[in-house]
Amino acid sequence: MLFNVVHSDTNSRARAGVLNLNGIEIPTPVFMPVGTQGTVKAVSRRILHELRVQIILGNTYHLYLRPGSYVIEQFGGLHKFMNWDPAILTDSGGYQVFSLKDLRKLSVGGVEFQSHIDGSRHFFSPENVIDIQRELGSDIIMVLDECTPYPATPGEAVKSTELSINWAERSKIHFSESEPHYGRKQFLFAIGQGSMFEDIRENYIEKMTNIGFDGYAIGGLSVGEPAETMYHIIDVSTNKLPIDKPRYLMGVGTPENILEAIELGIDMFDCVLPTRNARNGQLFTTRGKINLRNAVYKLAKEPVDETINSDASRNYSLGYLRHLFIAGEILGLQLATEHNIAFYLWLVRTARQKILSGEYRQWKKFFLDNYQNNDK
Amino acid sequence: MLFNVVHSDTNSRARAGVLNLNGIEIPTPVFMPVGTQGTVKAVSRRILHELRVQIILGNTYHLYLRPGSYVIEQFGGLHKFMNWDPAILTDSGGYQVFSLKDLRKLSVGGVEFQSHIDGSRHFFSPENVIDIQRELGSDIIMVLDECTPYPATPGEAVKSTELSINWAERSKIHFSESEPHYGRKQFLFAIGQGSMFEDIRENYIEKMTNIGFDGYAIGGLSVGEPAETMYHIIDVSTNKLPIDKPRYLMGVGTPENILEAIELGIDMFDCVLPTRNARNGQLFTTRGKINLRNAVYKLAKEPVDETINSDASRNYSLGYLRHLFIAGEILGLQLATEHNIAFYLWLVRTARQKILSGEYRQWKKFFLDNYQNNDK
Repeated sequence: MLFNVVHSDTNSRARAGVLNLNGIEIPTPVFMPVGTQGTVKAVSRRILHELRVQIILGNTYHLYLRPGSYVIEQFGGLHKFMNWDPAILTDSGGYQVFSLKDLRKLSVGGVEFQSHIDGSRHFFSPENVIDIQRELGSDIIMVLDECTPYPATPGEAVKSTELSINWAERSKIHFSESEPHYGRKQFLFAIGQGSMFEDIRENYIEKMTNIGFDGYAIGGLSVGEPAETMYHIIDVSTNKLPIDKPRYLMGVGTPENILEAIELGIDMFDCVLPTRNARNGQLFTTRGKINLRNAVYKLAKEPVDETINSDASRNYSLGYLRHLFIAGEILGLQLATEHNIAFYLWLVRTARQKILSGEYRQWKKFFLDNYQNNDK
Repeated sequence: MLFNVVHSDTNSRARAGVLNLNGIEIPTPVFMPVGTQGTVKAVSRRILHELRVQIILGNTYHLYLRPGSYVIEQFGGLHKFMNWDPAILTDSGGYQVFSLKDLRKLSVGGVEFQSHIDGSRHFFSPENVIDIQRELGSDIIMVLDECTPYPATPGEAVKSTELSINWAERSKIHFSESEPHYGRKQFLFAIGQGSMFEDIRENYIEKMTNIGFDGYAIGGLSVGEPAETMYHIIDVSTNKLPIDKPRYLMGVGTPENILEAIELGIDMFDCVLPTRNARNGQLFTTRGKINLRNAVYKLAKEPVDETINSDASRNYSLGYLRHLFIAGEILGLQLATEHNIAFYLWLVRTARQKILSGEYRQWKKFFLDNYQNNDK
């Protein structure tokens, strides 16, 4: 069984579950650190083990281009290449290819694009991104979809979703007709689109669930729309999605976004914010956000965040971390990344505990009041 | 007792000893990883603990300018600031100031210089670099000296060493008249100079040992002279230096240099090579040097170096490390640095074992034959 809901909140749509991927039991809600190019940036797998990370996200577009999925296949798949035993979800690469704008050409067959690295020409189809993800050997495979540009007219959104649903159908067929390469079971997730239009989203979800996938993502959000619009579209989507399948909100978001989405029934998250912002010197803490470059931290002897159980959070002062950033030391990137991941994991794990104890909404309010009040 | 020679080789001047710094027992020969700005670049203290690093080098010039020794004093010294319990040796900053060339003005009193960071003006004297190192709280304090430019005429070398010996005298006086700040005992090392001239070197050593220091460094080498010249000056120096005091060869060098210098009776080393070259993708291994950017490693499944007991050396393939470098991933810098430090430590630790078992020269030949034959 891929997914079990263990407990559903009585005051909201929030739920605590367990995702089982090749024997790895992953409590949900879960946050998946982003490991685009075969590593989570600036942290070793040993730090991730210590933080009990059980699933990370990899990226088909990046890995296909560099080192090449054929290289990774030679090493026995992405898990072996990275020396990473826990689970991996790979994004299909659609999002990256559609970000290329002028460097891509779209057809019903797929999308032709130019590499951002060397300008070489490539082609992604619903079928070959499955083949690539078979080569990578990820535990969860995402379908190729078109991330509808924002803002879009209803007409544009309909047209875009017609293409994506055609691709979703073909993905399911190709997935069924192909096999894992390394004896590791692979699961296929589809991605709901439909821009900010309720009816297009609902219609899309109906078609997608009729095809039938192992799990369902919500895509095309956090693309510039107001937070309230995003929450509304999540609400519309989780209201319609099957209760017994995992729900994954792609690429979202801030601690506030994640807690709202958990309340609306989301099980899985990924986002570059904790890792990317860490490298810019921004820490997420239980007391709010901290910008390490701020001079007020020059003599700050207190640890980053004693609430968070990680070496980086507890055993270095803010003043020392600030020094590392000002001096351009790589260790600053490492420690800030470790802390921010630890914080995001703490956030979703605490959310899960509070769902189980029936206190989710109260805790969310309490946490956010404290987090936002101290946010400078 | 700061230093004990445990065993002297009968076939060479090599010796195995123990350096005792504030209760930390450090077997010698020892290699001290360079941690210029309050961290060894790209590795956490936990990796260093795992590699059993017991002493690192910090830099007075860099720490005085950034974050400022007064900042570090507020944190209770450099050990506390970095959260580093083992020993620290701090270089006096002389080498860095004299590298500034056009930005410095030398007098008998000391040296005025401009910060490489913001151009601000500062002054180092033999006395105030002791004060700064008292503030930093390093276990071993180095005197301020002038690193004689290379090449130098005998006249230039004499003039330069007269200044340095004057500074060494004043350093001893000021050290004796000042106290440690944090209850940690501090030791003072002088630095032998004299360019590539035997008699000037010997004369300098005589004056320096007459003043009397806790240990003696050999400076002004690895500045562009041929390796044979360097070995000759080391030979001349260790022949003259007292047997019962630790001998530290500053800023040297390659694995070959280190093994030669051990044979000539050196106990302590520091060098940026393992850490700096790691960040350029060059690995030191028991099979020779490896440039990770070389395309031959694209599909290389073998680990970096199974002889070396570190996670980075044994648990990742060369192909994966190469990918991390090509993709510009920070983890590549981390793993390469960890491995290179582990290799340098393995080198001096193995040297020590072979000194103790009376096989040093045979082992050195065997190791270097293998190391250099495979060096591409």
